[in-house]
Amino acid sequence: MRYRLLHTDGGARAGVIQTGRGEIPTPIFMPVGTQGAVKAIEPRALRDLGASIILGNTYHLYLRPGTALIERAGGLHRFINWTAPLLTDSGGYQVFSLSDLRGIHKDGVEFKSHLDGSLHNFTPEKVVDIQRSLGSDIMMVLDECAPFPCTEEYAHASNAMTLQWAERCKERMEATAPAYGVEQALFGIVQGSIFPAIREHSARRLAEIGFDGYAIGGLSVGEPTEQMYAMVDVCVPVLPREKPRYLMGVGTPENILEAIGRGIDMFDCVMPTRNARNAVVFTAHGRLNLRNAKHAEDFSPVDPDCLCYGCRNFTRAYLRHLFKAGEILALQLATLHNLTFYLWLVRTARQAIQEGRFAIWKSELLKQMRS
Amino acid sequence: MRYRLLHTDGGARAGVIQTGRGEIPTPIFMPVGTQGAVKAIEPRALRDLGASIILGNTYHLYLRPGTALIERAGGLHRFINWTAPLLTDSGGYQVFSLSDLRGIHKDGVEFKSHLDGSLHNFTPEKVVDIQRSLGSDIMMVLDECAPFPCTEEYAHASNAMTLQWAERCKERMEATAPAYGVEQALFGIVQGSIFPAIREHSARRLAEIGFDGYAIGGLSVGEPTEQMYAMVDVCVPVLPREKPRYLMGVGTPENILEAIGRGIDMFDCVMPTRNARNAVVFTAHGRLNLRNAKHAEDFSPVDPDCLCYGCRNFTRAYLRHLFKAGEILALQLATLHNLTFYLWLVRTARQAIQEGRFAIWKSELLKQMRS
Repeated sequence: MRYRLLHTDGGARAGVIQTGRGEIPTPIFMPVGTQGAVKAIEPRALRDLGASIILGNTYHLYLRPGTALIERAGGLHRFINWTAPLLTDSGGYQVFSLSDLRGIHKDGVEFKSHLDGSLHNFTPEKVVDIQRSLGSDIMMVLDECAPFPCTEEYAHASNAMTLQWAERCKERMEATAPAYGVEQALFGIVQGSIFPAIREHSARRLAEIGFDGYAIGGLSVGEPTEQMYAMVDVCVPVLPREKPRYLMGVGTPENILEAIGRGIDMFDCVMPTRNARNAVVFTAHGRLNLRNAKHAEDFSPVDPDCLCYGCRNFTRAYLRHLFKAGEILALQLATLHNLTFYLWLVRTARQAIQEGRFAIWKSELLKQMRS
Repeated sequence: MRYRLLHTDGGARAGVIQTGRGEIPTPIFMPVGTQGAVKAIEPRALRDLGASIILGNTYHLYLRPGTALIERAGGLHRFINWTAPLLTDSGGYQVFSLSDLRGIHKDGVEFKSHLDGSLHNFTPEKVVDIQRSLGSDIMMVLDECAPFPCTEEYAHASNAMTLQWAERCKERMEATAPAYGVEQALFGIVQGSIFPAIREHSARRLAEIGFDGYAIGGLSVGEPTEQMYAMVDVCVPVLPREKPRYLMGVGTPENILEAIGRGIDMFDCVMPTRNARNAVVFTAHGRLNLRNAKHAEDFSPVDPDCLCYGCRNFTRAYLRHLFKAGEILALQLATLHNLTFYLWLVRTARQAIQEGRFAIWKSELLKQMRS
């Protein structure tokens, strides 16, 4: 995997990540396909709207349908028939947030499945092995996402363990080979809660170990937004300029614009897809709740400037009706729209960076979104 | 509306219905879009797979979003952005099956909404007026779908009332004009439960009144399949040869083939869409339940002969995983497949009729489906 930095504009960067399965222009938003599918959208539609990479989730896929089945299918790409790049997170976050956590120790974590209560363990080596089986283009190290809030002592100890796990993940990666003949990259994950010194140490140590890219994890977990940005500002200068930077699980369109301005290249979030299923749609003029009575007789599209299939063909009044009537088509159209918007957002940000007008474009768009 | 009979082959007919919004090749299957949307499929995908007409439901649309809103949208076609023909049923069936029926008398029916318990009434005139507001290309008369089983006396009295309602619907239709400048046809509905004499009388009387087409209703409601076919055989010879014949709410692929062989031109049924959402898919080799464990490691498509997006790109193992994981994509892909199959079925039947080999094609396909 290779990252080429093409342009900088203030702190913002435009680049391209080259993988064995194609290029990813950055900044990029990665739609979340937790269980091997992005909810309520066909893969062909995802490609049509410019999704160059999607996420899968190691924790979920390991539990169901299971690594063995995906191996027999020839890897996750073949199983879900997605030929472009895939990133898989390590499952660490889900072990801590979803499963019944039974124990955490220097060798890894023990947990009970949220599906059937069965007992499992993840070690740094095992999550690399699983991601080798999945065949993701970008693998993530096992980490502990510290709860928020937590004490500085907790964050320090947790991060020390996460750093050891990161090192072991890298060793395991170097001792193993891709299962399907396509190179796989490994990203480290900066932790440290909201403590600048721990964040800085984490980023510095990960850079020493050396990864193909660096994620900033453990943010957007309840801390004030300004603290999230402050942590990004602590990490970015320490991370290698020649590697991509990924802010995990973030966020709103506003969060993404601010983080791009601070030097982040990659984003993932369930926000566009989950909000779509709750009738909340994003536009360049702010967000709308399509269940709201004020849309009942509004025969204009969700966003007149949007070129998605929904906005070109259907009205707010119709979408509101579909949501009120519980029609699956509502989820489909709102999902398509929100992902179109998020991918438009990063694509347009990239163009603004390349043309040296990111800051002004961002500030105008943010103003428009708030009005 | 004009029906042209192009070929007959035994009892089977190939024809074309010309409407103000385009042609409908017959025999045809009409996907059901009860609330103004066919569940779990985009309208553009419906058109791509050859759906030349879809159904809307007067009862549902009258209650939600309401006739006034659809009128302000410019009619149902514009509200849902479906430019091809639409058929709306009269709501009679839903009043009897879904609502809290409060009273039935010669002037119509009183019922409480299944949505909010509000009190409403439908008269023959009112259902024509509503369908004028909706602007459907094919309107249906108000009828009583007699419960099954029922006595001959009940069926006789019920049908006498349905015939009077049919006459009043026709009068109302002749006294009113299309709301949106596009001609609207009106179909009568033959009732009579499983009593041949009542069915024959019903068909004869409706033919005397004169409609643009004739539906056979009140079947596939629990009676043995052979009785359904027997009722079709009673009605078809009495109905005008130069008008289309529509068997309402039918049915399985087998039912459709048998009914085509008996002279039916039009079908609608929730079976392909509802079954899809329950993981049951139809193929030319029979039906499959994709939740079945035997598909867990089956990396072949649902139907290797099918050209739908799902069958060209995804395996049974993946679809099973999507169903087990509760992914909306499962519903989307299975719906797309089942509608593709149903439309393939009627299109191929039509071709076989035109080539004079319907009987042998049908018998071979039925054998293959059962094997």
